[in-house]
Amino acid sequence: MDAVIKVGGSLAKDSERLIALCAKLSRLANDYQLVVVPGGGMFADVVRNSDERFNLSSGISHRMAILGMDQFGLLLAQITPNSCATHLLNDAKQLSESEAVPVFLPSRLIFREDPLKNSWDVTSDSIAAYVASRLQATKLVLVTDVDGVFTKDPKKNEGAKLIERLSAKELFKFNARTSVDRFLPKLLLNAPFDCYVVNGNYPDRIEAILAAMHATWTLISGRIG
Amino acid sequence: MDAVIKVGGSLAKDSERLIALCAKLSRLANDYQLVVVPGGGMFADVVRNSDERFNLSSGISHRMAILGMDQFGLLLAQITPNSCATHLLNDAKQLSESEAVPVFLPSRLIFREDPLKNSWDVTSDSIAAYVASRLQATKLVLVTDVDGVFTKDPKKNEGAKLIERLSAKELFKFNARTSVDRFLPKLLLNAPFDCYVVNGNYPDRIEAILAAMHATWTLISGRIG
Repeated sequence: MDAVIKVGGSLAKDSERLIALCAKLSRLANDYQLVVVPGGGMFADVVRNSDERFNLSSGISHRMAILGMDQFGLLLAQITPNSCATHLLNDAKQLSESEAVPVFLPSRLIFREDPLKNSWDVTSDSIAAYVASRLQATKLVLVTDVDGVFTKDPKKNEGAKLIERLSAKELFKFNARTSVDRFLPKLLLNAPFDCYVVNGNYPDRIEAILAAMHATWTLISGRIG
Repeated sequence: MDAVIKVGGSLAKDSERLIALCAKLSRLANDYQLVVVPGGGMFADVVRNSDERFNLSSGISHRMAILGMDQFGLLLAQITPNSCATHLLNDAKQLSESEAVPVFLPSRLIFREDPLKNSWDVTSDSIAAYVASRLQATKLVLVTDVDGVFTKDPKKNEGAKLIERLSAKELFKFNARTSVDRFLPKLLLNAPFDCYVVNGNYPDRIEAILAAMHATWTLISGRIG
């Protein structure tokens, strides 16, 4: 498995760009073994809103948000040429070997195994990391709508600088809110794969990651630092 | 099975009233065998919005919207005392016999059997009717945020009048958009149960339906007319 690629829900704000990204992933699947994991995006946002209004338990809002990932996964499977949505890790693995793009719907695996803390600190980033470890992927690629992890929130601070590379340990100690979830560094501390945070509005950067070329992103490594 | 009770997602707009309704259902479960089926509400609305923006296939948006029912079902199970969410019809039946309130999550049944047209004409009303027939319920109660089926949309027309009783055949020929989905009349044409449309902001009306007392609602009967 070359890479588990999480497509962040924030990318759904611009439908044309998301469609272009998915077309690129479909082409890349000819040369690389890929599995797509969906983010939650607007489907998880509605759950967050319900949580605030009904004061739900962390277990229930966790499950509802993961169903939101299934919803976005069905959407991604629809707009990605030569793709197929599946609940099964084995299916995903086999499909990736056939040049297809499997979109992994995480609800059944996560409800059955419940391997992660039930909290809003655990989002689709951590779930994608869990899937990457289960699939023994070489790389985890978190595709989002910013260039990577910054020193400060780049949407609010002009002076924020992109961090090109840091260790999971450094990210763990990071105080600022970043573009990845708060639980992810824990999962990456001893992960046997590299994690890239990359901007999906520039799909060529994902190709560069897979081809081990240089481009703009943040690399989080668990095995260094 | 005394009744399948669909709790419409529109009732989630007012959290206190929805919580009061769910408390009432929990008390009623001491005297009646009930199964709750969730609506889609805001969780289906996000899917509708995605459908418009990404021009999804009817099959995909149907599945995404049904996952929205699962999400609302988890919420309902959380705020209903003595309740339990389940994907299994048999579990729902057994739980209803034990004074508990089973909340039926429809995704697995509907994905497996796919018994209804994949279209926005089929919403949680039709799915609740399907569940009622599978559970051999005596009554189907569609709990919504208006008093029943009106001659015109009551939210837009002051002169709209509540229809206290009509046959499924009459509803089928009805031209106006009503508070129930467009496919429902077809399912009710030969249904062995009565269907009530009732305002969930007045939970006592649901008790009146179960006790065969008089109150305000619309009764749709498939066996008359």
